[in-house]
Amino acid sequence: MKIISADLNEIDGILDQYLKRQGEVISSADEVVEEILYDVQKKGDEALKAYTAKFDGVQLDCIQVLSGEIEEAVNFVEKEFLEILEEAKKNILDYHMRQKQNSWMTHKDDGIILGQMVTPIERVGIYVPGGKAAYPSSVLMNAIPAQVAGVPSIAMVTPPGKDGKIHPYILAAAYVCGITEIYKVGGAQSIGALAFGTQTIPPVCKIVGPGNMYVARAKRKVFGMVDIDMIAGPSEICIVADEDADPRFVAADLLSQGEHDEEASSILITTSVALGKKVMEEISRQMACLDRRDIMKKSIEDRGLIFIVSDMDAAIQLANKIAPEHLEIMAENPFLMLPKIKNAGAIFLGNYTPEPLGDYFAGPNHTLPTQGTARFSSPLGVDDFMKKSSIIYYHKNALEKVQEKVIYFAEKEGLTAHANSIKVRVER
Amino acid sequence: MKIISADLNEIDGILDQYLKRQGEVISSADEVVEEILYDVQKKGDEALKAYTAKFDGVQLDCIQVLSGEIEEAVNFVEKEFLEILEEAKKNILDYHMRQKQNSWMTHKDDGIILGQMVTPIERVGIYVPGGKAAYPSSVLMNAIPAQVAGVPSIAMVTPPGKDGKIHPYILAAAYVCGITEIYKVGGAQSIGALAFGTQTIPPVCKIVGPGNMYVARAKRKVFGMVDIDMIAGPSEICIVADEDADPRFVAADLLSQGEHDEEASSILITTSVALGKKVMEEISRQMACLDRRDIMKKSIEDRGLIFIVSDMDAAIQLANKIAPEHLEIMAENPFLMLPKIKNAGAIFLGNYTPEPLGDYFAGPNHTLPTQGTARFSSPLGVDDFMKKSSIIYYHKNALEKVQEKVIYFAEKEGLTAHANSIKVRVER
Repeated sequence: MKIISADLNEIDGILDQYLKRQGEVISSADEVVEEILYDVQKKGDEALKAYTAKFDGVQLDCIQVLSGEIEEAVNFVEKEFLEILEEAKKNILDYHMRQKQNSWMTHKDDGIILGQMVTPIERVGIYVPGGKAAYPSSVLMNAIPAQVAGVPSIAMVTPPGKDGKIHPYILAAAYVCGITEIYKVGGAQSIGALAFGTQTIPPVCKIVGPGNMYVARAKRKVFGMVDIDMIAGPSEICIVADEDADPRFVAADLLSQGEHDEEASSILITTSVALGKKVMEEISRQMACLDRRDIMKKSIEDRGLIFIVSDMDAAIQLANKIAPEHLEIMAENPFLMLPKIKNAGAIFLGNYTPEPLGDYFAGPNHTLPTQGTARFSSPLGVDDFMKKSSIIYYHKNALEKVQEKVIYFAEKEGLTAHANSIKVRVER
Repeated sequence: MKIISADLNEIDGILDQYLKRQGEVISSADEVVEEILYDVQKKGDEALKAYTAKFDGVQLDCIQVLSGEIEEAVNFVEKEFLEILEEAKKNILDYHMRQKQNSWMTHKDDGIILGQMVTPIERVGIYVPGGKAAYPSSVLMNAIPAQVAGVPSIAMVTPPGKDGKIHPYILAAAYVCGITEIYKVGGAQSIGALAFGTQTIPPVCKIVGPGNMYVARAKRKVFGMVDIDMIAGPSEICIVADEDADPRFVAADLLSQGEHDEEASSILITTSVALGKKVMEEISRQMACLDRRDIMKKSIEDRGLIFIVSDMDAAIQLANKIAPEHLEIMAENPFLMLPKIKNAGAIFLGNYTPEPLGDYFAGPNHTLPTQGTARFSSPLGVDDFMKKSSIIYYHKNALEKVQEKVIYFAEKEGLTAHANSIKVRVER
C-alpha cells in the first residue's frame, strides 16, 4: 500500500498508473468466446452439455433444475439464514419500489396528446456466478428489480459443481424470490444460450448479472441482439475520511473490498497523514485474523492506495475522478458533501455505514458500475428492466396547423416521401 | 411487396425470413474498425487527419469548426428554416423536460436514510452522420435531451464534405441548440477520438447518435470504456390498420420509411384484404412522383410486407413480436389498443399522426430502438444522459440492531472481512 501526496493537476497520470484501468479494446479471450457462442448457436443443448463437461467437469443429463432440487436445497439451508434472506428481500423490495417510473400523458392545444408508456421487458436472464464462493445476494439483487418492474418471465443460469448440483444457498435465494426457471450452465456458453435460445432454454431479451472474463466478453458480443446490464470489473472502494475518522473502521472497510478479488482496488483519500499511517497499521493487524488474507494481501499491495490531500473539497474532487463503485464518506457532516459528489455507484455516509451493509441488506442494489463507469452508468435498478415507448396523437386540426412547417423541414432534409405523408392528409 | 395471411403460430419463421434480423455476431467490418481505433488511440489527431483525407477526400488543417464557420452557415440558411428549427426545439424541449427524474431520499426507523441521487453525465459526444443527406433534426434530437439532463460539456462530430466544410443545416441546428464544440471528423475514427481523446478532442463519457456500419461497430468496440446509446439499424415502420383506414395515408407512411434506406422495412398489418390491395395500388401511384423512388422501390420490394390477420388483437400481438421502431395505429379507437402494446419505439395514434410528425416536430425523440430492440430498449431520452448513485446512511443504533444478521449473511458467503467491517463497529 502506497501513500501518495496528491496534486490534483497530476492525478490523471497517477490514476492510470495505479488503477490500471486503461481500457483494453481487444482481449485474448475473444476468440475462445466467439467459438463457444458460435457452437451454442449451431448446436444448442448439445453444445451446452459439452462445455459443461469440459469446464465444470460434470456430464449433465438434464440442464434444467427440477423442483425437487430446489426443495432439497431449501430443506438443507438453516432456517435462520432463510429468515435473513426474507428480511433482505423486504428491504431490497422497499427500496426498488421507489424507483418505478410511471407512464404519463399530456394534452396540448388543438387536440395533441403526447406521452410516454413504461412497460416491463418480457423475458430476462440472470447470470449467477459459481466458482470460489456462492453469492445468494446476487440472486436477490438481480431478481428483485426485475420483479418490481413486472418482468413476467425470468430465467436464471449458474454453473453446477462437479457433483452436478447448484449450491444450496443459490437455490434458496431463488426460492425466496420465487424464481423457478433455473439452468445448470455457466460461462460464455450460458450467455449464448440466453441470447440465441436452445432446445431447452427459450431466448431472453436481456441478460444481467456479474461473471468472469469469459462471461463479460460473451455479454459484450451478444449486446445488440439482446440487452445486457454492464461489463462488471473488479470491485472497488474509495473512502474519503477526515482526521476524526476511526482507523479501525477505515481499515476494515478497505479489507472488505480487498477480499473479493486480487484485482480489487481499495483507496483511502484523507486530509490526515496520521490517519493514513494508523490505517496501514490496522490493515496489517486485522488482516492476520481474516480467512481470505492471501487475496487481500495481494490486492492491497497491488491496488491499495492512500492519497493525502489538502482539504475535503480536494478529496471529493479526486473521488469524482476515480468514479468509484463504492464511496464511503467518514467525515463530520457527510450529508453536506453530497452536492459535490458527481461520480459514484453507491455512497455510504458516516462512520456506521460500512459498505457490506449495502452488499446484502440495506436495500439499494449491490450491482454497481465498476472501473470508473460510474461516470456514465448507474446501479442496477428497476429502469434496467423496463422500456419506454413514446406516444403521439394529433387531431386533424392540429396537423393542419403545423403541416407547412413539417413539409418544409422534410423537404430541407431531402425526404419528399416524408413530406408526402403530410400532404396526402391535408390536400382536398 | 408480399401479402401474407398470418398464422401467429408460424409467425416467427416468417419474420426471420423476411425481416432478416438474424443477429450477426461477427462482422467483416470489425478488422477495419479495430485498426482505425488502434491508430487513433496511438496517433491521435494525425490519425484523424489521415482517415479524413482517405475517407472524406479532404486534407484538413484544423479539425475543430471555428465560430466564424457557424456564423457563415447561420447566415446562409433561410430565416424561415431557422424559425422552424426553433419551434421544433421548443416542442422537443417541452417533451423531454417531463422525462427528468428527481433525486429522492427516504427515512426509515432507527435513523436509517436511503436515497438515490440523479446527476448528469459530465461530458457527452454526439455523432451526426454526413453522407447522402443532411439531418439537422438529428442534432436537435441528440443535443436537447443531454441539455435537459444538465450535461455541462457536449462535443459534436460530423464528417466534412470534400470542400472541408460541414453542411450548413447541421451547423444551423447546432447553433439553435447552443452547441459550439464541433469537430470535422466522421466514421470509426471519430468514435475512437471521442472514446480515447486526442490532442484536440478531449475524451467523453458517452457517445450517442446514429451512423453507418463502421460507426456502429466502433461504438460496440468502445462500449464499456465509454457508454453508447444503441446500435442503430435500418429504419422500420409497422402500421396496424382496420378496414376503415385510408389507403392513401397508409401507402404514404409506408413509403416515408422506404425512402430512408434500401434496407428499411415497411410493414402493414390489417384485418382487411381489400385495404391491403388498395394500399399496394396507392404505393405504385404515389411512388412515381417521389424523388427517392429508386431507394423506396427496392426497400418496399425486399422488405415490404402486408400481413392479413383475423382481428385487431391478433394484429397487435403480431406487432409486439415485430417490436417495430415506429408503430402506427389507424383504427377506430386507437387509444383502447395502448394497453395491449408491449414492444414499440414510438406509437403514432390515429389517422392524422403520420410518422414524419415525430421525426422533426412533435417533441418525442426520433432516435428509437430498431431491429426489434424495442423489446428491451427505449427512445433516446433524458435518462440516457443522467446516472444514479445510491445513498445509504445508518445511525449507530440502526447498525447495532441489524449487525448480527449482516454478519451471519457475510459469513455464509464466505467473506469474513465483510463480517469484520461490521464487527469492528459494534465491539466494545
